[in-house]
Amino acid sequence: MIGQQYLLLPGPTPIPDRVLRAMNRPMINHRGPEFRDMLYEVTRGVKGIYGTDQNLLIYPSSGTGVLEAAVVNFISPGDKVLAVSIGVFGDRFAAIAQNFGAEVEKISFKWGEAADPHIIKEIIQKDKQKQIKAVLITHNETSTGAFNDIKAVKQAMQDHPALLMVDCVSGLGALEFNMDDWGVDVALSGSQKAFMIPPGLGFMAFGNRALEIHRNNTNHRYYWDVTAGLNYLEKGQTAFTPAISLIYGLQEALVMMAEEGLDNIIQRHRNYRDMVRAAIGELGLELLAPDQHASTALTAVLAPGRSGANQIRSKMLNRFNIVLAGGQLELDDVMFRVGHLGYVRELDLLAVIAALEITLLESGFKVELGAGVHKAQQYILAR
Amino acid sequence: MIGQQYLLLPGPTPIPDRVLRAMNRPMINHRGPEFRDMLYEVTRGVKGIYGTDQNLLIYPSSGTGVLEAAVVNFISPGDKVLAVSIGVFGDRFAAIAQNFGAEVEKISFKWGEAADPHIIKEIIQKDKQKQIKAVLITHNETSTGAFNDIKAVKQAMQDHPALLMVDCVSGLGALEFNMDDWGVDVALSGSQKAFMIPPGLGFMAFGNRALEIHRNNTNHRYYWDVTAGLNYLEKGQTAFTPAISLIYGLQEALVMMAEEGLDNIIQRHRNYRDMVRAAIGELGLELLAPDQHASTALTAVLAPGRSGANQIRSKMLNRFNIVLAGGQLELDDVMFRVGHLGYVRELDLLAVIAALEITLLESGFKVELGAGVHKAQQYILAR
Repeated sequence: MIGQQYLLLPGPTPIPDRVLRAMNRPMINHRGPEFRDMLYEVTRGVKGIYGTDQNLLIYPSSGTGVLEAAVVNFISPGDKVLAVSIGVFGDRFAAIAQNFGAEVEKISFKWGEAADPHIIKEIIQKDKQKQIKAVLITHNETSTGAFNDIKAVKQAMQDHPALLMVDCVSGLGALEFNMDDWGVDVALSGSQKAFMIPPGLGFMAFGNRALEIHRNNTNHRYYWDVTAGLNYLEKGQTAFTPAISLIYGLQEALVMMAEEGLDNIIQRHRNYRDMVRAAIGELGLELLAPDQHASTALTAVLAPGRSGANQIRSKMLNRFNIVLAGGQLELDDVMFRVGHLGYVRELDLLAVIAALEITLLESGFKVELGAGVHKAQQYILAR
Repeated sequence: MIGQQYLLLPGPTPIPDRVLRAMNRPMINHRGPEFRDMLYEVTRGVKGIYGTDQNLLIYPSSGTGVLEAAVVNFISPGDKVLAVSIGVFGDRFAAIAQNFGAEVEKISFKWGEAADPHIIKEIIQKDKQKQIKAVLITHNETSTGAFNDIKAVKQAMQDHPALLMVDCVSGLGALEFNMDDWGVDVALSGSQKAFMIPPGLGFMAFGNRALEIHRNNTNHRYYWDVTAGLNYLEKGQTAFTPAISLIYGLQEALVMMAEEGLDNIIQRHRNYRDMVRAAIGELGLELLAPDQHASTALTAVLAPGRSGANQIRSKMLNRFNIVLAGGQLELDDVMFRVGHLGYVRELDLLAVIAALEITLLESGFKVELGAGVHKAQQYILAR
């Protein structure tokens, strides 16, 4: 099909030409001074996005890799952990902890909803013996388009010593997150979301309190070991061969993020969300997440009658070259997800709404052509 | 400095422009048909390089990551394993097995030498109870420039049921390797060596016998789990988000490798080795590995008087923009390593020899200027 594809997934996200060009460079020695300077620069830059002055390691891995890294470095077999799940990725974090021998107490909230900090508070308060060693939670739940209020969760934990470990893979850089201010101990992210680079880098930020706990950790590990990682980082290196081309891309993406400013980036994502939700609501479609928990990174839309979402996606792809994500597990075919994360333009989103109107109309649903687009225009106009 | 750097490391290796351009493309949906077709194509291609019709998974990871993948999928805690080491990477494979609870018997050979299959045979024959569950060995030892005769090692194991697990990270595609013919059970490799693409992809090939053993494996794992990997591969997907841009590069690199032909590629690497060793020998420098075990991927050269290697490397870098690798651990400053792996030209290697002659002369060593170059020319002429 003519023209570039509209890639509106909650990851991988579109890559800016500047980033592609930055990656399009010869390899260098990953044990030499040029790489060292770059590694220090990107480490500083990613820490800035996290809002942390503590520790950060960059792994050649997907986001799931760094979830495993967090578990094997900071949770020991037999440790009791509280895993808070609001969807697929909350379940995944819990499953990893379980696979590595933790005693997992999982609390699940309805898909589309956020975790209720009061319930977390109750559980935490009952733990008089301080047996819970860690609380695992997702920041932005990619499977539902809802986000958790991490600051409130930390406050709910009061002075309980459990580590707060947060999966920020799809939220960091798109949703407000202040690791040190909020008191988060471990936070995981990846390259293919708000960082605007291809998949293949995992980020793990961790505080000094987590590092102390790591010293006595008894889990099996080698590749993810943070002691090795930090020892090499001191020399300006990574423990194992780094994904050099992706780090070139990260370096350029961080320059772009600094030019725009983190607050502006987050506000831009809020604008995407508000516009998309208003326009889609205008078409009479139901949104999975309520306003107060709605992600700025993606919007999950229920298909009319809660079925046929995959046919809508398929028509959007074949006729308009627009890639949307489907629903996962029990939400397969029930809903589709519109990613508005990273290097997207609001007019792309407006175009998606226009295409969705046509698709719905052609599929036999009652839609007023232009109603959603008009709503989106009003949002753009009002700013 | 003017002109492109001579990157003569045993990884990362130079990236062909065709591969860089292939990577310089927009992201696609990693759960869609376009990615599926590409994944099947590269999986087939990499299997061809291994010489296997069995199973192959591609991970977003460095080479060390897939060493860990092999251990956690195919070795259970308490399993006795025989780890054969001829250098840093043999030691690493043993350390990973140990970290994950295996009972490791390690036999180490002198650095620069290959493992003696007779000694392996003796150990294997003594194991009447068949308690050894796996033999771990390095194909090409990057730290010394020696390679092991894997076929002979398998023959030495006779009908012992232990899995033969081979670290082929730096050897695959540069040295002969025939996984199925030789009866290798698990073989690991990575992208940044003979595959001519940036670091960030790990390859794990494994036979059906290994897969059977995996079914009862009790090690902790999640990210590396091959059951999950194979289930997703059946759908044309990876279990976790793949490093899409590197897979674009792999696709193009495999086309280039098919154009050249695997036998020709391996012969080309033999030519590099023979030329470099003859020329350096002509300069009176000592080579760490003897001819019969000498790697086709890199040559380890002892500095005159066995010290000052880092100063030679530093002069080569600063004056000629030539990047050589140093010696590792006790061989630091004792030797340097010339990578001749992947997308290099023999005239680049001739230029390195010329530069080395100048560097040695200026450093006060007795060298006949042009002697090594002349030898190299003779090698080129004789073909």
